[in-house]
Amino acid sequence: MGKLLDTIHSPEDLRRLPKQVLPELAKEIREEILQTVSRTGGHLASSLGTVELTIALHRVFHTPEDALVWDVGHQSYTHKLLTGRRDLFRKLRQFEGCAPFQSRAESPEYDPIGGGHAGTAISAALGLETAARRMNKDTAFAAILGDGSLGCGVSLEGLNNIDENKSSLVIVLNDNRMSISGNVGGLTHYLNRIISGRSYTRFRALAKTMLKKMPEVYNAVRRFEESAKSVFLPGGWFEELGIRYLGPVDGHNIDELERLLTAARESRRPTLVHVLTRKGKGYIPAEKEPERYHGVKPFDPEKGLPDEPGKGFSHAFGQSMIRLAEKRQDVAAVTAAMALGTGLDRFAARFPKQFFDVGIAEEHELVFASGLAAGGMIPVAAIYATFLQRSLDEVYHDICLQKLPVILAIDRAGAVEDGPTHHGIYDLAFLQAMPGLTIYTPADEQELQDALFTAVELAAPAAIRYPRGGSPRAAEELPLPGRIRPGKAQIRKEGKDAALWSCGAEIFTALEAVKILQEKYGLSVMAVHSPTVKPLDGALLQEHASRMPVFTLEDHVTTGGFGSAAAEKITVTHRFGWPADEVIPFGKVASLREKFGLTPEAIADVIANFLKK
Amino acid sequence: MGKLLDTIHSPEDLRRLPKQVLPELAKEIREEILQTVSRTGGHLASSLGTVELTIALHRVFHTPEDALVWDVGHQSYTHKLLTGRRDLFRKLRQFEGCAPFQSRAESPEYDPIGGGHAGTAISAALGLETAARRMNKDTAFAAILGDGSLGCGVSLEGLNNIDENKSSLVIVLNDNRMSISGNVGGLTHYLNRIISGRSYTRFRALAKTMLKKMPEVYNAVRRFEESAKSVFLPGGWFEELGIRYLGPVDGHNIDELERLLTAARESRRPTLVHVLTRKGKGYIPAEKEPERYHGVKPFDPEKGLPDEPGKGFSHAFGQSMIRLAEKRQDVAAVTAAMALGTGLDRFAARFPKQFFDVGIAEEHELVFASGLAAGGMIPVAAIYATFLQRSLDEVYHDICLQKLPVILAIDRAGAVEDGPTHHGIYDLAFLQAMPGLTIYTPADEQELQDALFTAVELAAPAAIRYPRGGSPRAAEELPLPGRIRPGKAQIRKEGKDAALWSCGAEIFTALEAVKILQEKYGLSVMAVHSPTVKPLDGALLQEHASRMPVFTLEDHVTTGGFGSAAAEKITVTHRFGWPADEVIPFGKVASLREKFGLTPEAIADVIANFLKK
Repeated sequence: MGKLLDTIHSPEDLRRLPKQVLPELAKEIREEILQTVSRTGGHLASSLGTVELTIALHRVFHTPEDALVWDVGHQSYTHKLLTGRRDLFRKLRQFEGCAPFQSRAESPEYDPIGGGHAGTAISAALGLETAARRMNKDTAFAAILGDGSLGCGVSLEGLNNIDENKSSLVIVLNDNRMSISGNVGGLTHYLNRIISGRSYTRFRALAKTMLKKMPEVYNAVRRFEESAKSVFLPGGWFEELGIRYLGPVDGHNIDELERLLTAARESRRPTLVHVLTRKGKGYIPAEKEPERYHGVKPFDPEKGLPDEPGKGFSHAFGQSMIRLAEKRQDVAAVTAAMALGTGLDRFAARFPKQFFDVGIAEEHELVFASGLAAGGMIPVAAIYATFLQRSLDEVYHDICLQKLPVILAIDRAGAVEDGPTHHGIYDLAFLQAMPGLTIYTPADEQELQDALFTAVELAAPAAIRYPRGGSPRAAEELPLPGRIRPGKAQIRKEGKDAALWSCGAEIFTALEAVKILQEKYGLSVMAVHSPTVKPLDGALLQEHASRMPVFTLEDHVTTGGFGSAAAEKITVTHRFGWPADEVIPFGKVASLREKFGLTPEAIADVIANFLKK
Repeated sequence: MGKLLDTIHSPEDLRRLPKQVLPELAKEIREEILQTVSRTGGHLASSLGTVELTIALHRVFHTPEDALVWDVGHQSYTHKLLTGRRDLFRKLRQFEGCAPFQSRAESPEYDPIGGGHAGTAISAALGLETAARRMNKDTAFAAILGDGSLGCGVSLEGLNNIDENKSSLVIVLNDNRMSISGNVGGLTHYLNRIISGRSYTRFRALAKTMLKKMPEVYNAVRRFEESAKSVFLPGGWFEELGIRYLGPVDGHNIDELERLLTAARESRRPTLVHVLTRKGKGYIPAEKEPERYHGVKPFDPEKGLPDEPGKGFSHAFGQSMIRLAEKRQDVAAVTAAMALGTGLDRFAARFPKQFFDVGIAEEHELVFASGLAAGGMIPVAAIYATFLQRSLDEVYHDICLQKLPVILAIDRAGAVEDGPTHHGIYDLAFLQAMPGLTIYTPADEQELQDALFTAVELAAPAAIRYPRGGSPRAAEELPLPGRIRPGKAQIRKEGKDAALWSCGAEIFTALEAVKILQEKYGLSVMAVHSPTVKPLDGALLQEHASRMPVFTLEDHVTTGGFGSAAAEKITVTHRFGWPADEVIPFGKVASLREKFGLTPEAIADVIANFLKK
């Protein structure tokens, strides 16, 4: 396996290969990606789709002098394999191994700027190009982004900011007709019309009335139409922004790709190359179900991904939303391209009129939700904690200030395997400062449902944050929904030597730590769960602080988080959580907890040491 | 004055007026706006430009059943005058008077959703429309936004999310060829080509090569060109997104406006009406210098705005940037349409190659800056604290994680007269959680310069936050730049009964409070200034806490701010600052300070009461 790949230690080696062996190389790369990802987990379908494109890019662009900026970076595995990181790649997503996305730390040479969140490639590449020109360098720059990313606000801002007279940026639009879910939006329809050769339909309909009054022109244009199809107007939308359009081109034909990319690179104008790829290409199960194979856990490539019964927080959220919608027609679910990830897929199928997938557009997601709320609905916006960072202004300006009942269902809140770009450990810092926002931190799936039902009934701005995966109590079917009393903490285990306060699913870590403290150190420590961090149960907290040391524990940085909220009310002895001073790396969350002292054992040790003093 | 206006108590009255008196009404409204704004201060030029447009909108749309959603809302003064708020309008921007923007609190009937930040109108209106359709209401919705707002990421996300098969939203593009500064970007050039009738130039150039091979078509098209100008292709960019385009139309011709708006309202498709207005219309000085008359302090309308010598923080920032650029070619200034507001206008004129105005696109601003930094430059991104909320994800994902030397110059940090949408009092909450970010809080203009020079030399992620206006030490000319030692607090006044720690220009409030404590209560209170809040001088703080009560003071909410950072290290007796639990209203900052106990007197009283206990 990998005979050609064995010979490639840098893109220079790739550029020396004869054209005819490239399809074989692509095959080897696919095999290598499939073998590694099925063992480590990772982003499979996007990477399989961009093998030929990446080969062509490195052959046309003189990397590393020329720079490739990958949007998100989950499709950059081939890029890693071709830029001297093949050995490292075998440790994909392992703690201290190969980063899930492109990364400056990993390869300052080939990854001039890191990725992880969608939509930044154009702006970043534009900055790199501008700096290079300022320093009189004549190198070339390509930003590679998916069709889903194109609809991102920041992508569109970047596109609008390309100066046709100054830039010769190459934008490679990797169009697989998907973001993670299927794509939405006017731009997608436009791209599809280009692909099907109907891109100028609108223009035609518009002009027809006028033209009919001038028969000779009308007839000429009619005759002209067919032959003009490919050069007449496709890409006009980009051309109007000052960006030359080339394509569409088959993204699995390396020859064709090289031809168009060369033309683009040699152009002295900003140029977009429209590349059609197939997500999951070369691995049949992924071609058939690209959304399911977007990000995968380890699996057997012979058998494909196993069918697993749904459970955990996202599943419970989806189930609770269905229960809500069964009762209330005014409840809506809104997502930014994360129907499957947030557990809303079944909701979407059952209540299509109450479901809105806005594409990768988190700002629009929340403003649109605020509009729904102003119109009398109760929208629940499901969003990953890390992507909520894209719309914090909207939480303030469009939800809290308007006092509108938008409920944020914040999934993946806490550290995650994907690493720094995806850790959801900064949300509380901003959210706690938001006026009138209730913040729920359910311990388990059942309490998530209770929080959702409570928030909908209270009909005021609310956020419910919960981690990836499930609590130890996760089950397929939830009991009937109850209600939560905001600001009322729960003592889950009594104790007298100290109190360990936690929020969210961390109560289970706390209970384990408390058990160790009892068994190993003979200490009686109380375990307290806060189902809301705003409001916080200040009275109970102060009562505890008056008679014993209080510790806090959270799946968030200790600056601006739950412990900080407690520290504003009492003296906290130690705040357990992620340090805000350093970047939390990628890798199994268990490894991260080990490193940062967030295992029950490590927590127990710190508390015991303090109490024994 | 205002005879016709006297008869209008609701839009219904307006709709009853005969067409021929409308120009006279427009004149009265302009006079009323000029008189009020010149007395109270406010947004003059945009409101003067949209008088006829607002009249036409309320005549065509059946408000309040139909809804008008104003983007930003600084152009909504006419709307307020026509919707029963004429008396209130006389107290424009006064504490407890008329809100600077549209506001749900002020008029739930006519302002279904509030505004303040650019770019949210399309998304919000789309939400309102979707909710109305869900409830089987057949009312009409218009989103009114400026050409500057159109380039905002969230606007473009909204535009891309309009479903041509479901929506009949009317988008009114108020094109005055400006945002606040002159506009930038591909879309602007496109709009300008439409206006000048050259919108299909690109299409023509593209097609010409092809057409030349078919002479009969070529000739026919040539003959056709002139007459086709207005219907042939203008608006194709919008049409491709599924949005019908109407216009351009003279925005000061009420008849024409009513005709097009009626067509748009009656259309069963999403429609954009392209309206050309003149910013400042009807008041010559504002027409001549629309940027200067965008937002104004009180002035004499006979004389116009006085020439004032520059001073204060923004001025010092601009001056310091010039000094930096005189020495270093690698320094760049980046702004999102705020060259004048952030004091960069003179820098822009002197160092055009190191200056980048990206339009109202804060996300792109910071990603582009990170690209500049990755390319070897040291970009300083000047941004208002409130608009930084739009790009907090970029601070994390594109700056801090990349460990790139982007320096944020955060202007207007603190409470401002403009009110809740513009208070810059939430930035620290998020910024303090950012790994590797140094946060400077200079006391005065000179220290701002020192912070800037220090941050550039350290070449690491940094934020410098400073309020609107100036410190008591503000001067036109700055002394030579010094350096700041991060994490080293300064005792500005010794004392032994208590310590009052502050950051930023609040040291001057602290010093005043300390003086009152001495003179009125005979108490000796220390005043400490923190030129950086991250790192914080924990050692000195703990030393003080060990021997006296410590109080903190900041121009930020007390949740997640400076006091919270202190509370994480010591027990803070009282954190002075804005409460995070409620919305801080608009009005003179002095009035706000009065209400929230942030005057030197109020602070002194609280401290004295505590110490006397």
